Amino acid sequence: MTNKIGFIGLGHMGMPMAKNLIAAGYHLQVYNRTISKADELGLASVTKCHSPAEAADGMEIIITMLSEDEVLKETVLGDEGILKRLPENGLHISMSTIAPDTAKLLSDAHKKNGSTYLAAPVFGRPEAAAAKKLWICTSGPQEAKEMAKPLLEAMGQGVFDFGEEPGGANVVKVAGNFMIMASLEMMAEAYTLAEKNGLDRMKVAEFFGSTIFNAPIFQNYGKQIAGKQYTPVGFKAKLGYKDARIALKLSQQSETPMPTVSTVHNRLLSAVAKGWGDADWAEGFGKGVSEDAGV
Amino acid sequence: MTNKIGFIGLGHMGMPMAKNLIAAGYHLQVYNRTISKADELGLASVTKCHSPAEAADGMEIIITMLSEDEVLKETVLGDEGILKRLPENGLHISMSTIAPDTAKLLSDAHKKNGSTYLAAPVFGRPEAAAAKKLWICTSGPQEAKEMAKPLLEAMGQGVFDFGEEPGGANVVKVAGNFMIMASLEMMAEAYTLAEKNGLDRMKVAEFFGSTIFNAPIFQNYGKQIAGKQYTPVGFKAKLGYKDARIALKLSQQSETPMPTVSTVHNRLLSAVAKGWGDADWAEGFGKGVSEDAGV
Amino acid sequence: MTNKIGFIGLGHMGMPMAKNLIAAGYHLQVYNRTISKADELGLASVTKCHSPAEAADGMEIIITMLSEDEVLKETVLGDEGILKRLPENGLHISMSTIAPDTAKLLSDAHKKNGSTYLAAPVFGRPEAAAAKKLWICTSGPQEAKEMAKPLLEAMGQGVFDFGEEPGGANVVKVAGNFMIMASLEMMAEAYTLAEKNGLDRMKVAEFFGSTIFNAPIFQNYGKQIAGKQYTPVGFKAKLGYKDARIALKLSQQSETPMPTVSTVHNRLLSAVAKGWGDADWAEGFGKGVSEDAGV
Amino acid sequence: MTNKIGFIGLGHMGMPMAKNLIAAGYHLQVYNRTISKADELGLASVTKCHSPAEAADGMEIIITMLSEDEVLKETVLGDEGILKRLPENGLHISMSTIAPDTAKLLSDAHKKNGSTYLAAPVFGRPEAAAAKKLWICTSGPQEAKEMAKPLLEAMGQGVFDFGEEPGGANVVKVAGNFMIMASLEMMAEAYTLAEKNGLDRMKVAEFFGSTIFNAPIFQNYGKQIAGKQYTPVGFKAKLGYKDARIALKLSQQSETPMPTVSTVHNRLLSAVAKGWGDADWAEGFGKGVSEDAGV
Repeated sequence: MTNKIGFIGLGHMGMPMAKNLIAAGYHLQVYNRTISKADELGLASVTKCHSPAEAADGMEIIITMLSEDEVLKETVLGDEGILKRLPENGLHISMSTIAPDTAKLLSDAHKKNGSTYLAAPVFGRPEAAAAKKLWICTSGPQEAKEMAKPLLEAMGQGVFDFGEEPGGANVVKVAGNFMIMASLEMMAEAYTLAEKNGLDRMKVAEFFGSTIFNAPIFQNYGKQIAGKQYTPVGFKAKLGYKDARIALKLSQQSETPMPTVSTVHNRLLSAVAKGWGDADWAEGFGKGVSEDAGV
Repeated sequence: MTNKIGFIGLGHMGMPMAKNLIAAGYHLQVYNRTISKADELGLASVTKCHSPAEAADGMEIIITMLSEDEVLKETVLGDEGILKRLPENGLHISMSTIAPDTAKLLSDAHKKNGSTYLAAPVFGRPEAAAAKKLWICTSGPQEAKEMAKPLLEAMGQGVFDFGEEPGGANVVKVAGNFMIMASLEMMAEAYTLAEKNGLDRMKVAEFFGSTIFNAPIFQNYGKQIAGKQYTPVGFKAKLGYKDARIALKLSQQSETPMPTVSTVHNRLLSAVAKGWGDADWAEGFGKGVSEDAGV
Repeated sequence: MTNKIGFIGLGHMGMPMAKNLIAAGYHLQVYNRTISKADELGLASVTKCHSPAEAADGMEIIITMLSEDEVLKETVLGDEGILKRLPENGLHISMSTIAPDTAKLLSDAHKKNGSTYLAAPVFGRPEAAAAKKLWICTSGPQEAKEMAKPLLEAMGQGVFDFGEEPGGANVVKVAGNFMIMASLEMMAEAYTLAEKNGLDRMKVAEFFGSTIFNAPIFQNYGKQIAGKQYTPVGFKAKLGYKDARIALKLSQQSETPMPTVSTVHNRLLSAVAKGWGDADWAEGFGKGVSEDAGV
Repeated sequence: MTNKIGFIGLGHMGMPMAKNLIAAGYHLQVYNRTISKADELGLASVTKCHSPAEAADGMEIIITMLSEDEVLKETVLGDEGILKRLPENGLHISMSTIAPDTAKLLSDAHKKNGSTYLAAPVFGRPEAAAAKKLWICTSGPQEAKEMAKPLLEAMGQGVFDFGEEPGGANVVKVAGNFMIMASLEMMAEAYTLAEKNGLDRMKVAEFFGSTIFNAPIFQNYGKQIAGKQYTPVGFKAKLGYKDARIALKLSQQSETPMPTVSTVHNRLLSAVAKGWGDADWAEGFGKGVSEDAGV
């Protein structure tokens, strides 16, 4: 296999992922809306392109890391989209968070084109991406997974497979985002309860984070929420709200009543309505619960 | 300090805790409603008593591990209660899950009596108690904590302090139980969503339990809920419901609106109403969400 | 039957009710904590008493209209309570809003005493009481209802019977209060939705109040909530919150999960936590929904 | 003005509305997917057409009563749609329940075409339509309202205006449907609470429906829910669920957190998931609450 691959999307997540691929010996044929960002990757390691089509031209594999379903659709299906030039049998590894529906639609488009689509969304923030600590979920054809394996291993600390259905891995990603949101809400409620009963929020958070809830979600977000330390902004409330809507929509499509989704959805909708859309989503939960409790 | 202490309550939790104290070299002056259970501890290590008062007689320290607030009140304040014979300056270490209110009431009664009350509720199931892996939260007078230290260390893997207020540690216990319930609900919703989207619940649970939610709560309960394996019964839904009521009551008393408490409260209330009170509480959540989703 | 009866409680509701009894030709043997309030009833129509016992002395019938369960219990069972002097076969008509439990307890106490308890809680505000427009619900022994009939008809526009169980009518009262709260929440949500979509809240409220929701609840409260006109205060949010707690408790006791009770409970708990406890309960709902929506 | 108008949609609602127009002296140029249904209107009163365009041909006014947003869009914008032949200055009165967004889109299309769109959704079931008892909400240009007035008065008992914005009346319709759903949920909870406390559901419903909740919603649906009489099916749960989704979407678009919308949405989603989609929506609420309560 060639060590030259296509790569589209040099945002907060895409940039450190691209760097890890280069560190692993790959040359990237890159497209980004602001193409000058590619300079940060070193001229020797990249070929800069002016369209998704150009980035896909002649490549066996192309990776995308784009934050919007609509942008990704245009990037694949548009007049200058990937499908215009990705060779037959080419593989598209789609790593951003999108709706399972979109994955299905893109997978079908690739099939008609003679190429292949592999869903590979990730869990982890930019720091995790930089440290090669992403958790990657995959779904799609078995062959595609084999082909993608060395690339995924160059970007993450573990790859988990969820079958052949194109949107399967995206369902896991939606479920995981929901569980994170539910955890933020839960902590905001619990630590406010503690505060209003005269306890030190931070001590309570440290206790849970080092004992029965000793997982990163509760340790990292626990400090933020318990300490009401919501800056710098890591992930915006309005983006979290979008994820809550995706979870709600998936619950509708699959006929799965989820009362906790309703709670977190309404919490973030309220955050946006109150003008906190650009604040960290942890603030959306933490400050929302605090205000309801009059503190 | 003498190595002889009082001990009341040889239930699922109390028995392994008593065994660990004996293993650490203590002799126990024991009271249990069914006193024959004390035989399991070895005749050389215990003195069997016929009342709480008798178990407290002449002791510097007495430990209680009883599951009901009302039973504990009677055990302390009753005609044959601890206060009748616990020496002046005696210490009562109260380790079961009770309402913060009850802790306050008992602490006040001890003060009047010239003795001391220390709240020391624990996190952990019977297996954890047997393995000396309990997490212990304390609140009360500083001296009492010093005095209790070697005993608590003989029963747990860590002791966390939450100040001088008698009910402080109990608030943490209530908050923690709430967080566990919220986690069970969250998993039930997420794994049902996954199932209805064609995924293997167990694989999804394993993924989360080994990555971003790699804490015991999500690993152990995750397997139960994802696998719909609700037997043998570890903790009954009706007891979980009681804990949800305590959390709700504390949210009322401290004026802290907690929508997620409402969700878990209603879930377990429904479980009890449907006749599942004696099933494991994980089933209350898991089967409840499944039925709502028609599966 | 004599036209002299006992009457206890000259508050916002009790005063106009007492006036209507006098207008119907009854003489009242009255007790009130501030007994000078009885002067308003006219010296010729009342006999002022210094205790509940005195008000009950020699009476065939005594009516109570007191706002707290605890106060009512003391009034009946206390050292100077009704039971000390109410004659054998005497009838106690209890018209305030209390928990069904309390009704049961008092009914049992009366039975032991050889007297009778009739629950007769009312729907209606002070204006309705003054206008003889109360709706009265009864539960208790059939004979008691016959005996109470002329009195109840002198105070209300309709009497509805709910069987022999002492607390039956109180359950209806709790259910009705819940339905009113749910209606306030519903209107606050609907009119805020209308407002945020560019419509005139008041016009929307007038439409519903004069068409498919043409009942007093939606007409009167509709104007308040749509117009954000929350003064003068009619019924305090903190009293509404107490009613929400009673509804929640009844849902627990009877194992009836009620998600809408949770919503209104949390809304009013938040109102109290935010310091709006003395505002009208319509404001608790209206302003609560508005703040969540950032308006 | 001519007394000949276009009319599209002879369903459960459209048929009685068309009959009332004929009774008022109008001749209808009719289109319906199954055109033979027009025979029921009498040959002398109608001209049968084979497309929406034909029904609009030469008409000053055309009325539509169609149950799906997508069908209405096709009916207006399609190759054989109304816009193909509606004369300049023609008026389209759109009377079905659609999303405010759809109203905006169609209004814009009419403007470009030189014609006018008037939103005029109705409240009332088929029986109300037959009895000329519909309540009609309007929004759109003032002139259009004047022109529509005699027609609307021939079909309803009252017309309420909600301004110039094309979707305004549709927002009111969505808000009203939400309030009806919230009322069904509220009654289901209240009457189940009453039942589980030993009361007769029907008596309780009759009490509320004839006193403080004496509006049609509580009287008619009250009987259904209290009596658990859910047949014949009037309005299907799956259609109610669609309306709940529209309400939820509108709450998202206008940034209005509505917890009661979440409750009714999840209730009907569960009804659909359990296979009750074709049952009456009152059953979705009533049976849903009953099952949760184990009865």
